[in-house]
Amino acid sequence: MNDTRRDARPLDFRVAVDDLERFMLAVLRRAGADEASADAVTRALVTASRMGTDSHGLRLLPHYLQALEGGRIRGAPRMRFTRHLPATGYLDAGDGFGHLAGFTAMEQAATMAAEVGVGAVAVGNSSHFGAAGCYALAAAERGLIGLAVCNSDPFVLLHQGRAPFHGTNPIAFAAPVAGQSPYLLDMATSAIPWNRVRQYDAIGRVLPDQVAADAEGRVTRAPAEVAALLPLGGSDFGFKGAGLAGMVEVLSSTLSGMLNGFRLLPMGGPDLATPRGVGHFFLALNPAAFVERSTFEACLGDYLADLRAQPAGSGAEVLAPGDREWRCQARRDAEGIPLDSANQTAYAALAEAAGIAPLRRLG
Amino acid sequence: MNDTRRDARPLDFRVAVDDLERFMLAVLRRAGADEASADAVTRALVTASRMGTDSHGLRLLPHYLQALEGGRIRGAPRMRFTRHLPATGYLDAGDGFGHLAGFTAMEQAATMAAEVGVGAVAVGNSSHFGAAGCYALAAAERGLIGLAVCNSDPFVLLHQGRAPFHGTNPIAFAAPVAGQSPYLLDMATSAIPWNRVRQYDAIGRVLPDQVAADAEGRVTRAPAEVAALLPLGGSDFGFKGAGLAGMVEVLSSTLSGMLNGFRLLPMGGPDLATPRGVGHFFLALNPAAFVERSTFEACLGDYLADLRAQPAGSGAEVLAPGDREWRCQARRDAEGIPLDSANQTAYAALAEAAGIAPLRRLG
Repeated sequence: MNDTRRDARPLDFRVAVDDLERFMLAVLRRAGADEASADAVTRALVTASRMGTDSHGLRLLPHYLQALEGGRIRGAPRMRFTRHLPATGYLDAGDGFGHLAGFTAMEQAATMAAEVGVGAVAVGNSSHFGAAGCYALAAAERGLIGLAVCNSDPFVLLHQGRAPFHGTNPIAFAAPVAGQSPYLLDMATSAIPWNRVRQYDAIGRVLPDQVAADAEGRVTRAPAEVAALLPLGGSDFGFKGAGLAGMVEVLSSTLSGMLNGFRLLPMGGPDLATPRGVGHFFLALNPAAFVERSTFEACLGDYLADLRAQPAGSGAEVLAPGDREWRCQARRDAEGIPLDSANQTAYAALAEAAGIAPLRRLG
Repeated sequence: MNDTRRDARPLDFRVAVDDLERFMLAVLRRAGADEASADAVTRALVTASRMGTDSHGLRLLPHYLQALEGGRIRGAPRMRFTRHLPATGYLDAGDGFGHLAGFTAMEQAATMAAEVGVGAVAVGNSSHFGAAGCYALAAAERGLIGLAVCNSDPFVLLHQGRAPFHGTNPIAFAAPVAGQSPYLLDMATSAIPWNRVRQYDAIGRVLPDQVAADAEGRVTRAPAEVAALLPLGGSDFGFKGAGLAGMVEVLSSTLSGMLNGFRLLPMGGPDLATPRGVGHFFLALNPAAFVERSTFEACLGDYLADLRAQPAGSGAEVLAPGDREWRCQARRDAEGIPLDSANQTAYAALAEAAGIAPLRRLG
């Protein structure tokens, strides 16, 4: 019965950016999110979906609504920012949406960076914030270099470890580029994301080597056997990925006084009532506080020109971080954002339950 | 003839830390380094050698002396620090030793972090600074979180690239741990260092998969064919290592107004007369500017206890970043720092040329 419904969904279902925004805002408001929270969640999810980061885009809306309805996340949080010193502050996110916490914290960091050159904000009592890149990007859009990191519940082995310990602990870094879209790196410190394993399982595909392990910590390429991801670098060099995940952990959980990732309640539930107490960390650097703005712009422009002029391997292409994303964004802004059949089903159900107009299929 | 001399060197030649320091200081002073420069180079090299980072330890002294004698590096530089805003500054290193620039810049960053919570310093007109970890560690020794990055001349492919573009662009991150040695991550953003290729070539060993490429950018495991390193992550996930290398590049060359790594003169020469204009970047964060110091200490202690309690794979061991280094340091402080036959030869030659007492062999 389920399969029949899924098969009935059009293979090519695309939605306009503004219609997706309209839908998300309405559903979030109906579910009890205040205006700032609904705006922030929508901004983060739509940003990720436009860039092609589908793992952290519109797919997550149903999950966030469940967390809101379950009580894990407060739709109208009392967030309190305290600027402890001229360049640092702490945001107590009041168990609200991580997206609102992220944009708020980066805005505070940016304000401090404008005044004293750097701003750094630790965030506590927060929740999943979606794609880390959104917040680094928010800094770059204000002409600043931005760094955003967050820990997560355990999926990834330590180097030589046998059980999941770190989360996929992403690092996002963005820099403004004069006359171009920003430099944007947004990477998990595992080799692959967890949902890649599920995708490969669903289509019967074998995983690349050195990305996942079974319940004994042995490398496996069979998706059905996977119990954990390997840190970036695999069996031989995973101490690098694990060390970067640890850097993320130190910045996002210890500087915020929150639980480390190993002790976090799992994002996926079953407990959707207890706040998870997630921590994040945000840094903004004002380039003009180091060298003349024009010097920075020229150097970054030269670097990216040198990079893009490099010869590629046969049939391949050399790209700067973000190039693929901006290309995808331009395409999706013109042609719409695609929904696979599972998301079509989920969004139709949301529309019906909330009594709002469903997404309009483009074309 | 060379082989005979090398064979005559004792297989187990170890030297005490203070004797190595005595030797380095004397040789550097004879070669024209001022006191601050000789101290800084010695501190960096001895720190690396004690921790077992042999690629960046005593091995490099002869190279630095050549660069000093050739004129590339000034032994008595006029370094000028300008604090542009309360949390940021620029150090013009005056073509002096990168080690003096590094310790000076991190000290300035630490001073700012004590005052305003964060300090960030871009360094220009510098030179090779040895192991990035030394400077992150200098922050941790002052109770601060430290980050140190530096670009280098090209050895590493871009993701899908065919020619070397990035340097091994290291990231070093350290955090103070109450009652313990610091958390210390010091990693190249390539999978392996360049001298690993040479070592494997010398002993006829095949490289691990996905760490190096031939002149066409194709992955190779034969050391003799290697023309470039792969970024961390290899063929499939090298966009992560390359993106991290790019982050290092943005911080260390564009914020300092220096040449990007692709345009840097090669460290290895043949031109040892022209200053290379290397850039670095240093960040210090004061944990107490985010949460109570005791909260930070408890959280980091808990995280590391959780980490070290994780089950390891069969015959393996789970370690926090730095654990291996502190273990090595304790051993070498007790038993001496080993010199292989090549370094014994080089150090004997230095002693003779400078007319100072040679290293004393322990035991």
